[in-house]
Amino acid sequence: MNIPVTDTGTYERGQALSERVNPGMEAALAARYDALVPGMSRTMVDVAYGQFYAREGLDEKTRLLATVAALTALGGQTRPQLKVNIASARKVGASQREIGEVIFQMALYGGLPAVINAMNAAIEVFNEEAARDE
Amino acid sequence: MNIPVTDTGTYERGQALSERVNPGMEAALAARYDALVPGMSRTMVDVAYGQFYAREGLDEKTRLLATVAALTALGGQTRPQLKVNIASARKVGASQREIGEVIFQMALYGGLPAVINAMNAAIEVFNEEAARDE
Amino acid sequence: MNIPVTDTGTYERGQALSERVNPGMEAALAARYDALVPGMSRTMVDVAYGQFYAREGLDEKTRLLATVAALTALGGQTRPQLKVNIASARKVGASQREIGEVIFQMALYGGLPAVINAMNAAIEVFNEEAARDE
Amino acid sequence: MNIPVTDTGTYERGQALSERVNPGMEAALAARYDALVPGMSRTMVDVAYGQFYAREGLDEKTRLLATVAALTALGGQTRPQLKVNIASARKVGASQREIGEVIFQMALYGGLPAVINAMNAAIEVFNEEAARDE
Amino acid sequence: MNIPVTDTGTYERGQALSERVNPGMEAALAARYDALVPGMSRTMVDVAYGQFYAREGLDEKTRLLATVAALTALGGQTRPQLKVNIASARKVGASQREIGEVIFQMALYGGLPAVINAMNAAIEVFNEEAARDE
Amino acid sequence: MNIPVTDTGTYERGQALSERVNPGMEAALAARYDALVPGMSRTMVDVAYGQFYAREGLDEKTRLLATVAALTALGGQTRPQLKVNIASARKVGASQREIGEVIFQMALYGGLPAVINAMNAAIEVFNEEAARDE
Repeated sequence: MNIPVTDTGTYERGQALSERVNPGMEAALAARYDALVPGMSRTMVDVAYGQFYAREGLDEKTRLLATVAALTALGGQTRPQLKVNIASARKVGASQREIGEVIFQMALYGGLPAVINAMNAAIEVFNEEAARDE
Repeated sequence: MNIPVTDTGTYERGQALSERVNPGMEAALAARYDALVPGMSRTMVDVAYGQFYAREGLDEKTRLLATVAALTALGGQTRPQLKVNIASARKVGASQREIGEVIFQMALYGGLPAVINAMNAAIEVFNEEAARDE
Repeated sequence: MNIPVTDTGTYERGQALSERVNPGMEAALAARYDALVPGMSRTMVDVAYGQFYAREGLDEKTRLLATVAALTALGGQTRPQLKVNIASARKVGASQREIGEVIFQMALYGGLPAVINAMNAAIEVFNEEAARDE
Repeated sequence: MNIPVTDTGTYERGQALSERVNPGMEAALAARYDALVPGMSRTMVDVAYGQFYAREGLDEKTRLLATVAALTALGGQTRPQLKVNIASARKVGASQREIGEVIFQMALYGGLPAVINAMNAAIEVFNEEAARDE
Repeated sequence: MNIPVTDTGTYERGQALSERVNPGMEAALAARYDALVPGMSRTMVDVAYGQFYAREGLDEKTRLLATVAALTALGGQTRPQLKVNIASARKVGASQREIGEVIFQMALYGGLPAVINAMNAAIEVFNEEAARDE
Repeated sequence: MNIPVTDTGTYERGQALSERVNPGMEAALAARYDALVPGMSRTMVDVAYGQFYAREGLDEKTRLLATVAALTALGGQTRPQLKVNIASARKVGASQREIGEVIFQMALYGGLPAVINAMNAAIEVFNEEAARDE
């Protein structure tokens, strides 16, 4: 597929951000998906990180906690992305308690199953953290 | 219906919070729903405001922005609650830009229709604000 | 479109049931949709009423209350069908209170916006009932 | 976290009900979640069981079948709660057939994937029952 | 349960189609579900395959790609059905690339988690294909 | 906000495509949203049209019908986008019948309420078409 010359700004800033919060993610996406969907990894880095996560106007921590809230409420299929965003939120200074509170708050909107599933995802992330820190 | 003596703590703090951020809401819920579902307004104030919104461990502004994020991503049926929570977020210090950013970020998770609908709800709230301030 | 000879059992029992609980519905569906999607009204009566609502093994009232629960939790796009099923539940003996309770219970699973929207739909149905009974 | 004095009514009746239908659940929630989200287990017992499941105005069996319907239609993330509610419905007198019918009815609203997944969850619960009864 | 005489048209054409695209599916459904929900396998073949998949007015390949799109966007609970429909789409001539493109397009509507999950389901189907062809 | 130099390829091709299928959309988005969320209209054109709709590997008509399928199944909040995509599908050669069939097929996955709502949206689009053609 002829991939048009991509953004000389959003892709680069997306790549910088994704490497900072999820090192190796673009390479992993490329290895897994680009043969089937040409340019998929680049589009995801450009779009998700370059054109959304890297935006100004909202501090990084609140942006990530808001994302955790949404992924909790949407539930079900979002576990892997939930774990990625919980880990990113920790990287930019969110406390475990703040993440737990955001998830619990979702009981009012996403229902209890969503809360329990997301809380379990958070606990996995926190345990992996603890294991790494030992 | 025999409504059990309710919480001498969560109901009261829920009522204090709901009156501060949405004055008159409990009375409106009671007038509309309690005849059909006895105690509905009290349960909603106790549960939503007393047992969730009033929790410690996360600042009020982030809690409300996280709620706006989830209601945006869930979309569709959530417009009235979205407007209530956007207005509450404004009351506790969120800027219009921060709210707009939280909603736009949801494009990655709730899809574009959710973003457009929530952005329209936010603009309605901001216009009502402007009208009040004149 | 060549519509295959349809079920000599499920369509007829579906038609009998839909005429009993929603008189005129098949004709209304046919008038609105069959030119675009040949056979749509017949398929909906055969499938929805003949192959699901008319099944044995669960009393009609519980089947309709369970449907009201699901439509409440799914929320948003389901208002017209919610009103139809609430009216049908009333026709087979569900009390307004039972319907209100089923909807309120959904706060735990569909979230508060879903509950408020469904409760408003129920109140509309009950008011239409009251108007008819005057 | 300073947890306000909790309800001298809803928490106690919630606890009585949850111990009757899901013995040990509160302790399990407390052990897993309360360190991260102080008071989470108590809030869930108070809110879910004390303020919703224990309400009057709808018989327990219908309330649980309605919950099974909603969890089926919502699908995906709800499997554990679906199994808990199917088991509770059995405890209060719902037949396996009635539960199967409620789930199958959801084909019209939650789609076939939701039905298949919920039916599989029900079969697991029924097999566990059979194993216990041997 | 007295199952009414079923459609002498839709059931038969549904059976013919399901045996062509998913040989053995009806028997598997019958073995697993019919004891609990009498007639479930027949209803699913009649309804899903006879009354929807076998309709005229849209070519089979587009119908299946549209189904893959919807199952991707709905996400979460739909993985098994997604794999069945991806395999069916391959059987009627859809390329792996076309299926990948349909799934990726859903990023705009179902969100990134839905895309990643569906892409993984597709890759499983394509690997099973490759294994069979060896 | 400092908006990075945007893609010299995806934005331009996105703009070309959006002007062809939805003339004036970018200007309308800019007028309504860019003051609140700087660059929102440009990002939407770049991302939605430039990085997804304009991709190769799937014919335009199938891509739009797949999008109609997903928006139907997601239901509720998607009506405006559904109408835009139905109109676009018509522009690239989809027949009204094909669109009707794609929507009806969703009964199996998105449920009947989703089908009825989307069918009504399609009929509105077709009526607007007829009005224009007079």
